[in-house]
Order: sequence, then C-alpha cells, then structure tokens
Amino acid sequence: MTTPDTLPAEVARDISEFTLEVPSWGYGNSGTRFKVFGTPGTPRDPFEKLTDAAQTHAYTGSSPRVSLHYPWDKVDDFGELRRYADDLGLQIGMINSNTFQEDEYKFGSLTAGDKTVRRRAIDHHLECIDVMRATGSKELKIWLADGTNYAGQDSIRARQDRLAESLAEIYLGLGEDERLVLEYKFFEPSFYHTDVPDWGTSLLHVQALGEKALVVLDTGHHAPGTNIEFIVAQLLRQNRLGAFDFNSRNYADDDLIVGSADPFQLFRILFEIVQVGAHRPGSGVNFMLDQCHYLESKIQAQIRSVLNVQETLAKTLLVDLEALADAQERNDVMEANAILMDAFWTDVRPGLAALREERGLPADPFAAFRASGYEEKVAAERVGGNQMGWGA
Amino acid sequence: MTTPDTLPAEVARDISEFTLEVPSWGYGNSGTRFKVFGTPGTPRDPFEKLTDAAQTHAYTGSSPRVSLHYPWDKVDDFGELRRYADDLGLQIGMINSNTFQEDEYKFGSLTAGDKTVRRRAIDHHLECIDVMRATGSKELKIWLADGTNYAGQDSIRARQDRLAESLAEIYLGLGEDERLVLEYKFFEPSFYHTDVPDWGTSLLHVQALGEKALVVLDTGHHAPGTNIEFIVAQLLRQNRLGAFDFNSRNYADDDLIVGSADPFQLFRILFEIVQVGAHRPGSGVNFMLDQCHYLESKIQAQIRSVLNVQETLAKTLLVDLEALADAQERNDVMEANAILMDAFWTDVRPGLAALREERGLPADPFAAFRASGYEEKVAAERVGGNQMGWGA
Amino acid sequence: MTTPDTLPAEVARDISEFTLEVPSWGYGNSGTRFKVFGTPGTPRDPFEKLTDAAQTHAYTGSSPRVSLHYPWDKVDDFGELRRYADDLGLQIGMINSNTFQEDEYKFGSLTAGDKTVRRRAIDHHLECIDVMRATGSKELKIWLADGTNYAGQDSIRARQDRLAESLAEIYLGLGEDERLVLEYKFFEPSFYHTDVPDWGTSLLHVQALGEKALVVLDTGHHAPGTNIEFIVAQLLRQNRLGAFDFNSRNYADDDLIVGSADPFQLFRILFEIVQVGAHRPGSGVNFMLDQCHYLESKIQAQIRSVLNVQETLAKTLLVDLEALADAQERNDVMEANAILMDAFWTDVRPGLAALREERGLPADPFAAFRASGYEEKVAAERVGGNQMGWGA
Amino acid sequence: MTTPDTLPAEVARDISEFTLEVPSWGYGNSGTRFKVFGTPGTPRDPFEKLTDAAQTHAYTGSSPRVSLHYPWDKVDDFGELRRYADDLGLQIGMINSNTFQEDEYKFGSLTAGDKTVRRRAIDHHLECIDVMRATGSKELKIWLADGTNYAGQDSIRARQDRLAESLAEIYLGLGEDERLVLEYKFFEPSFYHTDVPDWGTSLLHVQALGEKALVVLDTGHHAPGTNIEFIVAQLLRQNRLGAFDFNSRNYADDDLIVGSADPFQLFRILFEIVQVGAHRPGSGVNFMLDQCHYLESKIQAQIRSVLNVQETLAKTLLVDLEALADAQERNDVMEANAILMDAFWTDVRPGLAALREERGLPADPFAAFRASGYEEKVAAERVGGNQMGWGA
Repeated sequence: MTTPDTLPAEVARDISEFTLEVPSWGYGNSGTRFKVFGTPGTPRDPFEKLTDAAQTHAYTGSSPRVSLHYPWDKVDDFGELRRYADDLGLQIGMINSNTFQEDEYKFGSLTAGDKTVRRRAIDHHLECIDVMRATGSKELKIWLADGTNYAGQDSIRARQDRLAESLAEIYLGLGEDERLVLEYKFFEPSFYHTDVPDWGTSLLHVQALGEKALVVLDTGHHAPGTNIEFIVAQLLRQNRLGAFDFNSRNYADDDLIVGSADPFQLFRILFEIVQVGAHRPGSGVNFMLDQCHYLESKIQAQIRSVLNVQETLAKTLLVDLEALADAQERNDVMEANAILMDAFWTDVRPGLAALREERGLPADPFAAFRASGYEEKVAAERVGGNQMGWGA
Repeated sequence: MTTPDTLPAEVARDISEFTLEVPSWGYGNSGTRFKVFGTPGTPRDPFEKLTDAAQTHAYTGSSPRVSLHYPWDKVDDFGELRRYADDLGLQIGMINSNTFQEDEYKFGSLTAGDKTVRRRAIDHHLECIDVMRATGSKELKIWLADGTNYAGQDSIRARQDRLAESLAEIYLGLGEDERLVLEYKFFEPSFYHTDVPDWGTSLLHVQALGEKALVVLDTGHHAPGTNIEFIVAQLLRQNRLGAFDFNSRNYADDDLIVGSADPFQLFRILFEIVQVGAHRPGSGVNFMLDQCHYLESKIQAQIRSVLNVQETLAKTLLVDLEALADAQERNDVMEANAILMDAFWTDVRPGLAALREERGLPADPFAAFRASGYEEKVAAERVGGNQMGWGA
Repeated sequence: MTTPDTLPAEVARDISEFTLEVPSWGYGNSGTRFKVFGTPGTPRDPFEKLTDAAQTHAYTGSSPRVSLHYPWDKVDDFGELRRYADDLGLQIGMINSNTFQEDEYKFGSLTAGDKTVRRRAIDHHLECIDVMRATGSKELKIWLADGTNYAGQDSIRARQDRLAESLAEIYLGLGEDERLVLEYKFFEPSFYHTDVPDWGTSLLHVQALGEKALVVLDTGHHAPGTNIEFIVAQLLRQNRLGAFDFNSRNYADDDLIVGSADPFQLFRILFEIVQVGAHRPGSGVNFMLDQCHYLESKIQAQIRSVLNVQETLAKTLLVDLEALADAQERNDVMEANAILMDAFWTDVRPGLAALREERGLPADPFAAFRASGYEEKVAAERVGGNQMGWGA
Repeated sequence: MTTPDTLPAEVARDISEFTLEVPSWGYGNSGTRFKVFGTPGTPRDPFEKLTDAAQTHAYTGSSPRVSLHYPWDKVDDFGELRRYADDLGLQIGMINSNTFQEDEYKFGSLTAGDKTVRRRAIDHHLECIDVMRATGSKELKIWLADGTNYAGQDSIRARQDRLAESLAEIYLGLGEDERLVLEYKFFEPSFYHTDVPDWGTSLLHVQALGEKALVVLDTGHHAPGTNIEFIVAQLLRQNRLGAFDFNSRNYADDDLIVGSADPFQLFRILFEIVQVGAHRPGSGVNFMLDQCHYLESKIQAQIRSVLNVQETLAKTLLVDLEALADAQERNDVMEANAILMDAFWTDVRPGLAALREERGLPADPFAAFRASGYEEKVAAERVGGNQMGWGA
C-alpha cells in the first residue's frame, strides 16, 4: 500500500479518539547535571505551563490532559488550577509524586531505613491523593529515585520489604475509582542498584497491592538492547499495563522526543498495543509523554511528539492483520516481515492532514504553530519572575 | 581482617557442605559459530564424561553431581549410567532438555505455531522425566532457544500463550518429589525476540504452574549492566530461585569460567545467597556450572571454577554482618562499603588449603590435578571414535 | 514532500549507478553455535552460489559483484569460476581470507605467538592475492577472529606488534592497483579481548601500511549504543573508508537483513555517505552485504536487502540539503530535524518502481522473484551432494 | 603467593614514588540532574578545597597534586592560591577548561557553527593557559560537552573540521614545556552524537596537533562492554596516553569511587601500565581521580580512592612476569590466567601498611582520617557562605 490520500474510516476513527497526556514539566526548563538552559518565554508558574500545554492541544486536537508533578506544580488553590485548565479545554491527568529533591530522601524514600523518612514519604503520597481529588485526577504516578551507589550501602532485600509496606499504606489511601501506577527504571540517579529497576519488580509490587495498582512503562528506562515491545505484550497479557511514558533514548534515559531516536521501535511498541485494542479509550492504558526539551523549543517539541505518536499509530493500524497471521502460520518469515514493513513505510501524512482538516485542525500543526507567533508573544510577555524547571 | 590461616569453624562447615553440580557437556567439545576445537582426550561417550567429572570431584571434594543433557547424553541403558556414576561416587543431577537441534524446531518448540511441533516438544520433555526416573534425578531443566529474528515473524503474545499451555502439560507429568526449573535468556540464538528473555517472564510462568516450578538464573543471560544480585535477592524473596547456572561473560553469553570476568560480581551474588542461608544444603537452590571450554583444558577449567566459587563463597561468609547492619542503619556509606570490601580482599586461600587437607583433599586441587598425569593418560587412551560435543 | 511518483532525475541516476556487492556465503547455510539449518535448494558448490547470486542481480539490477570467501569458495580452476561469473553477468568482488577454521589458528593467526602459525597465516593471505589475480578481483578483505578469552592469556601489546608485522608482509604482496581492507569487530569469537576491536585500531594499522590499505566497517561490529554514522563520517574524513559490510543487529553481531532492525540508523549512515558523494561509482567505497540467512529464504533475503539499501539511499538523496544547512546555521533544532525526517518518511517505493520499469526490471523484484518458481526449481534439482555452509 | 608481610623492595619503591592527582571539585558538592546534596563542612572557596585535598595527601602521602577547574576555581589572585597550595605541601596540577556552563555554548563551543562562540571558547582556553602559568601548572585538560541531541541538528563532519581548527589555535598558545590533553566521552550531556566520543577521534586530533598533545582516558567514558585495558595498551603503544581520569561506573558515567564497581578491571588496566613502566614518575602519564561524591563523605572517598589505586597497583607489581610470559608462549591458558589471578588475590594490605609506617604515615589512612575529627571540625567551622559545587 502506498500513500493513501485518506485513511480508512476505522483508522480515522481510532486516530481521532486517541489522546496523549502531556507533562506540565515538559513546558519548563530542564537539562543535564552539567547545565540547565533557560529560554525566553518559559512558564513561571503552573498556570503558564497549562497555557502552553493548551497550545499543543489546540494544534493537534489530541492532547487534552496534563500531568502534574507535585510539589513542582504546587499552587495555593488547586481548585483554581483545575478551573483554569477547564477553561482552556484541558483536564488534569496523573499526579506525579516527588521524593527525590528533599535532603532527607538522600538515602531513600519509601525504601529508607529510617522510619521517619519513610513516614514522610508515605505522607507525601497521601498528600498527592488529596491533590488528585482537588484537581479531578484519578491516577497517582510513582517513580522512585531510591537505590544505592555502592555495594553494601544498604540491604537490597530489606529495602524491598520496606517498599512493599510503604506502598501498601499508600494503596489504602486510594478511593474506589482511583488508581496507582508504579514506574520502574534501570538506573539513575542511583548507580549501583535501583529499588524498582525492571518490569518484573514493578509487577510483583502492584500484584501484591491489588487491582487498582498497575505498571508504568517509560520507554527510556531499560537496559541497552531490551526488547520493549515484548514487555508491553507481557504486561498487557497480565492486564497490568497502566500507563506509558513516551520518549526516546540512544544511551541512557535521554528523554528525547518520542520517535526521534528509533522510529521503528515506536512502531513495534504501538503494534503490540493495537493488536489488542489497547489504544482505544477505556482500555485503561494512559498514554503520556515524559520528555525534557533543553535545546529545542518546548511547545514545538511537544507538538512534534504528538504527531510522531499519531503517525506511527496510524501506520500500525494499517497492518494487514489477516495476511500477517496467514504468513506467520506458514512460517513465511520474509512475507510476514514484509507485511509489517509495508505499513511502516506507508506515508500516512497526507491521510492525517486530511483527517485534521476534517476535524477543523491545521493540516500541519507543527508549521501552523511555528507560524502563529505564540512563542514570540510569550517571550515578550513573560519577563521577570523565575522560569520554572525541575524544582518547585 | 587479613589472611586467616584457618577459617572460622562455621565458615569451614558451610564450605565443606556446599556443593556445585557440573555439566556433562563441560567435558565435551564446544566452541563458537565460527569453529569448534577438539582436544586429545575429549570424552567419546557419556561414560567418559562422567569419568572426567569424577576427577573434578576427586580433587575438590565439592562437585558430586553431574547434569545430563538429553539427547546429548542418551545411552541405551540409563540404569547402567546411573550405576557407573554411583561407582565413581557421583550422582546424576538435573536433566536438561534440548529442543534446539532438530530441524522441526526451526521456528520454535514449546511456543511453535505448529501443533505437531509443540506436541513433539512436549513429549520430549516427558521423555526427559523418564530419564530422570531412570537416573535418580529429581529436576528437569528447561532452556528454550525459542524466539524470532524479525519483527512480524510471529506473534509475541500468541507464543506466550502457547508456552503456558505446553509447560502446563509438562508440569502435570512431574511426580510429587520432582520439580521443573525454567531458564531465561536475553538473546541468542534468537536475535529479535526471545520467548523467555528475562526473570519476570520466567517467574510468571513458574508461578502459573505451581510450587514445583522454579526459576533458573544463568549469570550470562542478561542485558549489559544488569544488576544480577538484585534479581537473586528478588527471586529468593519470592521463594522461586531454583537453580544457578554459573559462568562468566564480558559481552554476551560468553560461557567463560565463573569468576574470571568479574570476580566482584560473583562475590556480590553469593553475598545475597549467604545472607538468607541459601548456600546451605536443603535450601532448594541447586548451584551449577554451565560453561564452555574451547580454548582451555576442560577438567582444569572445571576444577578452577569450583575453586573460584568456593573461594568467593568463603569471602562472603567472612563479612561482618553485625557491623554491616550497623553501618547501614547509620547511612555510613563509606564504612558499610569498607566492611564488604574487607571480606572481598581477605585472602582465603590458606584457610581453604588447610580445610582441604583436613578433609583429605589436596591443598591445591588445580596444581595437583595438573601434576597427576590424567590428561596425558586419557589423551593416549582415548584414540578413535568421535569426540563428544554439542550434539547427540 | 510526499510520495513522488517519479524520482528526481539526479536521484534516479544515482540509484541506477549505485551497486551492492553480495557475499557468496549469503547463499549457503549458516546459523548459530546452537544449530545450522539446511534448506532444500541450497548451493552445493561455488558455481551454484554464483547462479543464485545472479538471481539477485537479475531482479534488482544492482548487485553485479560477488565476494568470495577463501577457502570456502576454493575451486580447482578459478579462471573457470571467473568465466562462469562472466557468463552470468557477474564479476568477482573482494576475496575474503579465512584464518579461523583451522586447528592451528586456535590461539591466533596474524597475531599468534608461534612463528610457524603466523607464517602460515601470512602465506594464506598471499594465496588470497593469487586468487584475486585469477578471478579479476582487486581487493583483499581481512577479518581476523584473533583475540583471547581470559585476562593474561596473552600479551595484548605483543599481539599488536605481531599483527603490524604480519600485515606489512601481506601489504608488500599487493600490486599497484590492488588494495587491502581491514575489518574490526567488537567481540566474538573472542570473549575477553579482540585484536582489532574498533575503528581506531583498524585505522592505525592501515595508516601504517600505506595508501592501498583501508578500513572496513561492518554495521554489526560495535558496542551497544555506538553512533555508527559518526564513525562513517570520521573514516571518510580520513579518506580511509574502504568498504561496508551491511547487515542488522539488535544485540551482538546478529547478521540480520540490513535495515530490518533499525531502518533509521541505516538512513543516518547513508546520509553521511551521500553528503560527500561517496555513494557514487569511483568513490572508493565498496558497499557490500554480509549477512546470514538461516531461518529465511536466502535469495529472497538478499533481494530484500538490496531493496532496503536502495530505498534508504533514495530517501537520503531527497534530503533538502540547502534548507538543512540553513536551519543548522540558525540552530533551529526542530526545523533541522524535521527536514531530515521529511525525507525519511517519504515513500520512495512508487518512484523506485517506476525507475525499475524504465530500466527493464520488475517493479517489485521481491514479489517477482517469489513468483518466478526459481526456488522450487532448484529445490527439486539440487538433490544429493553436500550443501555449502560456513566451511570449505 | 599469599599475604607477604612486607612488599618486595622494588614494589615498595614503585608504590612510594607513585602519585595520584586529585580534583578540586571532588571536594565540592555534586550530584545528578535530579538533585545536588550538600554536606556540612563542604568548602566554600578554592582555598578550602585545597585545605581538604591536603588531608588526602597527609594521610596517604600519595596525592600531592590538585587539578583545578576553570572558572569553578577562579580566584582573584592565582599566585596566592599557588602559594597557599605550596604551604600545604601541594602543587597545582592540570587546569581543566569549562565550556559547558555558559548559555552561549548551548549548541557547542570549539565545534560551534557560530564563529563568535568558537572565538570565545578558544579564548577561554588561552585564558586557561594563563592560569597554568600563574599556578605553575604545565597541563591543559580539555573535555568538551559538545555534541547534538537530534539527527540533523548539525553536520557531524563540519563540526570535526571546526574542532580541528579551534584546537590548532589553542595548541599554538602552548609553551615549550606545556602540553594539552584531550578527553573523549561516549555520551552525556549530548544524547545523539558527541564530537569526541572515542579514543580514535581524540587520537586523530592530538596527532594532527603535534607532540605536546595527548589523549586523556576517563575510565567511565566508554560504551558498555568496552575493553579499556586494550585502549590503554594501544595509546601507550602510540606514545599518546597523557593522563587518566580514574573513577568507576556500572551504567554510564557514574563517577563512583575508583575500583568500587569492578576492582578486577582496575587491576587489568594498571597491569597494562606497569608492563611498560608507565606508572613510574617521568613516564608522561598523569594519573588523576575524577569522581563525584554526593552520597558519601568527600575526603573519605578521596582517601579510599587513593588506597584502591595503590593496593591495585601493588598487586599488578606482584605478577610473576617471567612465569606469565612462559605460560603465554606455551599457550597454557589456564596457567597464564592463574598467574595473573594469583597476584590479584594476594592481600597486599599488610605490606602496604608496613610500608606506610616506614614512611611515617598511618598504617590505615582511612581509619586514621575518620578518627581525626577533621570532618566534625570543618562542619562546625564552615558555617555561612555558599558551598562550592559544579559552578563557579
């Protein structure tokens, strides 16, 4: 198949209904341990972050939810923030807890040997649940920086036990319709061992908690060479894939624009998703971006990211599943692979442009935003005050 | 602590009681896809392999069990092989199934789409259980080469389902006192996806089977940078660590002598073991070597491997656990690490030599074997016939 | 740009003139250390390999040269082989030496400590030069399996010195219009150290030899995460990139179909090539495939590989270089990346199909070959005799 | 050999004469992109850093030089700093340039497309040479953060050309007895391509500059699995190894205490050094630490690092080179490896303790420093002011 001018109806429907959550911190400054670069126009408070996030949604029509990071996005009145989002046509998405920027968490938070520290970390998560209720969010996202840098620094096993206890107490704080998602990460900021380093560990903990606990898969949090689509398939098979943190990496947790480093990997990941219909609303999988933009324009990068996921999703929806199953059954390796690649190489951009125009959106959201003058406007307006970054 | 002339009594006892299983195929030829090198004196049948394995045990006093690989070690009368082992002071250990050297397994065995192939692969495992009964073995070890080389070649998810069904049928074949251990491997011989690539997948399958199913951890089967001692701790915490395949690697599944590539890693792994007493007889963890010796002398390499594990185990048993726990509680990173390293750097060789002499063994098994003339003798005697290697 | 029905004239010219060399061994059996699978119809001698290679060329019009491996492709009369190739419309390409399948090379060949072994290895290469002259080849390709498996096994430094001496003697054997290319490889079959592990080492040796010595870059021979296009740019900058071995990898030297694992990487590599015109005939870079096909149809896989490189090359030729340079100069990261990606996502298949038909070739070489009945024919005809594989 | 109470005379001499340079920034705060943790007593200016560095030297007798980072260590009067060091019995070692913390270097420094930026970066290095002259330093160390995050962001090749030009201008600024060392790094803070990613690139640039330019090898700056001792051997063979940055890593550039992650790797690296006598004063190799201590006590960590290198060096000096050469010549893999490991497992701590006492140093510098009360003293004294960290 080559370059359909319009997408098949069911593909168009799925694309129209598919949404991505964007991270509030994706609109603030970030960087590496070497340097955080600022840019004119960077938001100075959570309200301005939402204002920028609304741009992404305005141009793509596909990113109506914004994740908050607590306490980075702490405001006096979360109800006001919620109403502000509402006025912008946005909803507040997941609430991300943060136990890695206080001095007391130096040696761990939910896993710390010190009971007082653990208590405080648990309480922080309960506070996040309060924020959820004040903002209309239904999901608590937990990523822990916990781990050690040297062999012997602490007991790997004791920390697992303490983690299990801490999570259990947080879980009890969840309401009926609320859920908790637990993220795993291979390494960084811990360099010897990480307390939740892999999907197996995350899964064991959420299974122990109950049905409202699920796993978050961040595409940048794996060892080199890991087949991520296999993990996606496995977590879906266990009904425990709660959310995605999309981004790209070449080396470590590089947090680059999703689809920029290895677009074919993104295709393979989404193909596991669409095969079981998990891309559809109501599947229980929350698709989210989690990226840092420290060299490039932040809003442009978020728009590009939404487009990358959308284009790739459209490609996976074009795979001829019947022909594929037939080739697989015959062990026709060359044909089966060719069927997959045919969809990957199909240029879905004209079809998506047509669909966007039908939906009253710009055919090329990236170009339209660049031409809008928004960036110049906020650069001129947002003068004075502190730009927001990784920090409250 | 520096160089005790004798080991503390409880360390000496633990070392004396600790045993390692050796692989029959470690005494045969092996190599890489580029070349298998033969050596004069290499066994020509399973009986000669046992004869060589008995040398390792004779010199170390610590390797009384020999794993078999089926059908590589197929003989007309397994009862005869068992009696032969018995006469040598050996027991038959795990029976390793093999579904990767028949043409029909080209596209999978327990995961294959073709029912006839799956049937045959299941039957092969049931046959392995028969071999267990004929040889006195109580454990079936399953490592699968199953996987694919190209995206789209087969359905990752369907293969998981088929694997689960196949394993369930094999599991039903086990007797009350028999068990099954399932090995995972990151990659090779499959280069796109592997059906049991990580500990999480192996654990999910054995949990689904029941209490007689456990996970095998091969130290060479992980992604670069993986913290293996963490996995050891996690599997022990789940009571699902059934067996170890010890070896070393720098790159992929290099199958080098255990402890030769990164001796400190071996120390950290064994330290997780001894902290919960899992090195003791009756813990349910079967410690085994799984290595290829294609450049070096095979029996010497097996003896060296036993010594490496023994020396490292002794070091871990010397860790001052009380002082360590105290330093950990105080978050004294430098002290905690120093306590661990003190044990690592302690020279346990004199103490082990003394212990061996007490047990009627040569103080230096490696030197003693080299001086024994055994290798020259078998090189002269074992003339004619085909040397055994990876193949029945 | 989206889906041009015809390619721009200069792109069409470049594609028409671009050729890939195919490996004779790509038409024989191969596999992993676990198993080599045979397939009906596999060639039984070098002549049949050429016959199959001619199919790839017949359908793609772009693979007129065949690399030989010596002694795998040894025949009584190389002149006859050359004439046979000529009749098929093929030329003999590079002659690949082989010093990894004889027992005496167990501990090294050109680097071996034993002078007799080194002598023999040098003589083997001089013999390869004779084969070049008998077949019309102008290039000697050297890949060495030399290395060690254990620290201390041999002196890393002494082996470098011996390698330099051996290469110097081989270099002296080259005629005016002949050249030598030296390949590097990260690991395998050596698992502790490899004597030519990286481009830096290969470059140092070829620089020491003289202008007729160059580096071969095999896309599967790098550490995880290595930016290969950087190395391409660097070697081109030094005028020392002599040849490519194309293939794909996810883990180690997986030898999969080029472009199948990470098509965007192939695009980035070729983009470095086209920016300096090194894809054009006469640039001095010999583009070659070096792959193993042990699950999939060998001829289909070679055809697919030629198409993958051709399609990707066409995409790189579509990059708007002027706009790119402009965006780079303005540090417009988003725009610069977008310009590159626009070319990557452009569907060049219709344009290439049109070009092929213009050249008298099938629009879809893959489908045309599959429909031709050739595979069924040779499967029926090539009965009896030994199928060729990795071995003479 | 096991636990000599005293070291052989020539080993004792080599150990006594061997010195390590310490980094001024190792005494300041550091951390990850997630958090920089402060500690009571952390230096508030370069003078206090030197005061702390003097402690490391006082207890080990082996770290008389301190590297400065410019402008982190900028003071009004470098002559005063030099005299201060002199009074403490210290010398100023290498001057490290810094072009990664100014906004203008966002898109590169010596490689930047913008001429003004390049000019400023070159001038910064010339200013560093002035600092060298004011402090008595003879070496300029260059590590560049330059690179890109996205394919297409800039021209890999053009950046190499600009780098070469910039370096040439800096090189011209060096005096007769001054030299420049160029560091390479695999990745971070750039995540797509790095302008000096590997030893080959660094070597090409320093070769082009002249004899006063050499390569710096940081043990944490390589791809996973890289055999670092091979690179050491290769650079020594080219007489271009100028300096070491010692530290440890498990994943990326973790900057942990040298020898803590893989002590056997450190042994293998130093063994390549001692085999050609490059550990001796006057060899031209400057051995330096480059580490971050953000969880552990900084001075303790520096002392431990010196001890780790010293102990490991002593072990390498105990290798029986004659026996090793003999075993290597006979291709006796097991024996050759055993000879190396014998030295590795020898406990050199008693011998080093005896040597220290002979030299008037504490037998156990680590314990002695911990007991000294110095840390408590500076924690009480250094109140008020800003703790120094990564930043001027």
